[in-house]
Amino acid sequence: MSSFDIRAMARAARAASHVLAGATGEKKNAALRAMATGLLDSRERILLANAEDVAAAKSEACPPAFVDRLTLTVPRIEGMARGLRQIAELPDPVGEITGMWRRPNGLTVGRMRVPLGVIGIIYESRPNVTADAAGLCLKSGNAVILRGGREALRSNQAIAAVLAASVASVGLPEASLAAVPTPDRAVVKEMLGLHGLIDLIIPRGGEELIRAVREGSHIPVIAHDKGLCHTYVDAGADLAMAAEIAYNAKVERPGVCNAMETLLVHAEVAAAFLPGFVARLRQAGVQVRGCPKTQALVPGIRPASEEDWDTEYLDLILSIRVVDSFEEALAHIARHGSGLAEAIVTADHGRAMRFLREVDAGAVFVNASTRFTDGYEFGMGAEMGISTQKLHARGPMGLTELTCQKFVVLGEGQVRDSRA
Amino acid sequence: MSSFDIRAMARAARAASHVLAGATGEKKNAALRAMATGLLDSRERILLANAEDVAAAKSEACPPAFVDRLTLTVPRIEGMARGLRQIAELPDPVGEITGMWRRPNGLTVGRMRVPLGVIGIIYESRPNVTADAAGLCLKSGNAVILRGGREALRSNQAIAAVLAASVASVGLPEASLAAVPTPDRAVVKEMLGLHGLIDLIIPRGGEELIRAVREGSHIPVIAHDKGLCHTYVDAGADLAMAAEIAYNAKVERPGVCNAMETLLVHAEVAAAFLPGFVARLRQAGVQVRGCPKTQALVPGIRPASEEDWDTEYLDLILSIRVVDSFEEALAHIARHGSGLAEAIVTADHGRAMRFLREVDAGAVFVNASTRFTDGYEFGMGAEMGISTQKLHARGPMGLTELTCQKFVVLGEGQVRDSRA
Repeated sequence: MSSFDIRAMARAARAASHVLAGATGEKKNAALRAMATGLLDSRERILLANAEDVAAAKSEACPPAFVDRLTLTVPRIEGMARGLRQIAELPDPVGEITGMWRRPNGLTVGRMRVPLGVIGIIYESRPNVTADAAGLCLKSGNAVILRGGREALRSNQAIAAVLAASVASVGLPEASLAAVPTPDRAVVKEMLGLHGLIDLIIPRGGEELIRAVREGSHIPVIAHDKGLCHTYVDAGADLAMAAEIAYNAKVERPGVCNAMETLLVHAEVAAAFLPGFVARLRQAGVQVRGCPKTQALVPGIRPASEEDWDTEYLDLILSIRVVDSFEEALAHIARHGSGLAEAIVTADHGRAMRFLREVDAGAVFVNASTRFTDGYEFGMGAEMGISTQKLHARGPMGLTELTCQKFVVLGEGQVRDSRA
Repeated sequence: MSSFDIRAMARAARAASHVLAGATGEKKNAALRAMATGLLDSRERILLANAEDVAAAKSEACPPAFVDRLTLTVPRIEGMARGLRQIAELPDPVGEITGMWRRPNGLTVGRMRVPLGVIGIIYESRPNVTADAAGLCLKSGNAVILRGGREALRSNQAIAAVLAASVASVGLPEASLAAVPTPDRAVVKEMLGLHGLIDLIIPRGGEELIRAVREGSHIPVIAHDKGLCHTYVDAGADLAMAAEIAYNAKVERPGVCNAMETLLVHAEVAAAFLPGFVARLRQAGVQVRGCPKTQALVPGIRPASEEDWDTEYLDLILSIRVVDSFEEALAHIARHGSGLAEAIVTADHGRAMRFLREVDAGAVFVNASTRFTDGYEFGMGAEMGISTQKLHARGPMGLTELTCQKFVVLGEGQVRDSRA
């Protein structure tokens, strides 16, 4: 049993959020710079806490890749500080009025961007998320409750304590950010029930974490379920360009959600494209699976099962399907895509435009790699996550997506007459 | 028990939504005009079905106001047709790209507006909602499942049948809109569980309906809980203007969500403002409740209880509170407002700006009546409802709020190098 009072933490965050909502950009940027300096000044304390987490993870025989993600170093702490300074450089989304229009009766109506309130983040091992999420929430005028992975508990506590003290040092509420100090899952369950105190939950992690949060939450959730991304090589495409884009999407960093899992190739170019491309993939250590037509074109490819078309490998594995038409490619993507990112390589303007319009995903690419699906790559600064949903946010979520718009109306005494 | 297969209806709507998402504005406008013509041509059939609903409601001794809202007439059907033609005149939100920017590597990134998919509407008595909702969903490229009130079942079935046939007559899917043909509540419950087939649920009706839908839904819900709107008369305000605005907000149509329920008056102007204003309210039949200071200024006012400050009267009743400062007014609104609409009457620019920024509501007014909180009054065309939430939509929901934005990215062969 845990005696930790998550409701009290959320109430304090709610109170802090009212102050943050009214804070100037200057004040928030001062806080972000203080947070960066705080991290650098307290690196010994953070590294000590992290060393305890790392030792515990090793003694529990966690996989080396996991231990690597958990481990903090001076350069990694410097990276976190740099990230916070970059967030300070971004424009303040709060208060932006995206346009005002004048009604026939003289009323001037517009939309003003405002914070959401209190955001809860539930994430897994990497402690740098603690600083990124805290920085993005603070800049967008939201308070945040951080619930990181059990294995990073000491690291996250140390980081959050430094960040909260830094926020307080410039006169903003210390409760603007807080990390849940217990790994107790009952606390997460309670947190997901705090409707009215927390406005949005963002889970970041594997499919299982996201499913559990979605199912358990009484608060709106924004997340991506998985990243099953396709690249479609169209008839008439520049095959050298197609090879570069598809190779990049599969090989450059296979373990991330915006990497390609399935390659679709139009039958007209399959014979010219696939043998050379598969040879190149194999040199990079990629295991290739394929439909019967793919197998007929390239020897030694194991058959792709129905399950393969729905599998996010996150690994050096690729399934390839030859399609007879553009429409067949669209239908395959509609059926198997996860709504994260989809790409076409084509020289045909009409099909490029149809792909952009008709493919239903957070990010749709013409002649570029799905690997660019990322807030920073899109020029929006750091990202809070990627949404594969349709409500509120779709695709990479930056500062804008941590806000909403209210209507503001300026009058000079206007009243309404329904009978007019 | 009901044998009605809501899942099959939702599946057909989902299939239709894919066609609607790709339909041109021209095609959708043709459908809207066919829907308008269809209603006029089939008015006899609709009036007959409605007469049965009205007779049943009368035999169940429904209140006259309820029967009035339920009753269709030729002018009301003409009004529905006119509404559909107005929706045809609005710009098509789908495909709009709200801006594109170019990245240093030459990628061009932007956001494109796309439909949500399938929308479920759950509403109470007025059958005109059937046509309004069907029209707005069609124009925004969404399929819709309509579940109206039990008492309007025959009317809604007749209207929806005519509208669906009209949509089919221009070559769009008949399943683009469908009305649930049974009053069985078990079907609503099942509908609220169709995650993956229905993308958004919009409940329209009383607090109880909205609470039941929120609690029972596994699909995201957008609604307004209630409308507890304030008007604050600031120190130094033009008191004649204040009287016009506050009178309009209370009296012009007291039974709607954007009517005022509580008047806040700065102590400096209370003695000059309240006696005359309360006299005018009383002439209009308004029952006035007040804080002790209000009672001291105007004889014969009954005390407002703590409960009054949280009550949406929807009637000719008003609670009045005298506040000692602008901040006290803000605090009262923060504590008791429902986030629908709030107004200040002021001559002070600084406080006007602070009110706009700091008051947390879907629509915030300076020197105008909260009664303007309405999609049509804001110049956005017909509205689908009003949201008091913060995710996705806040304030009146028009065509734009029935869409989301995806990222579109145009490249010329760009690939990503994480190590660059």
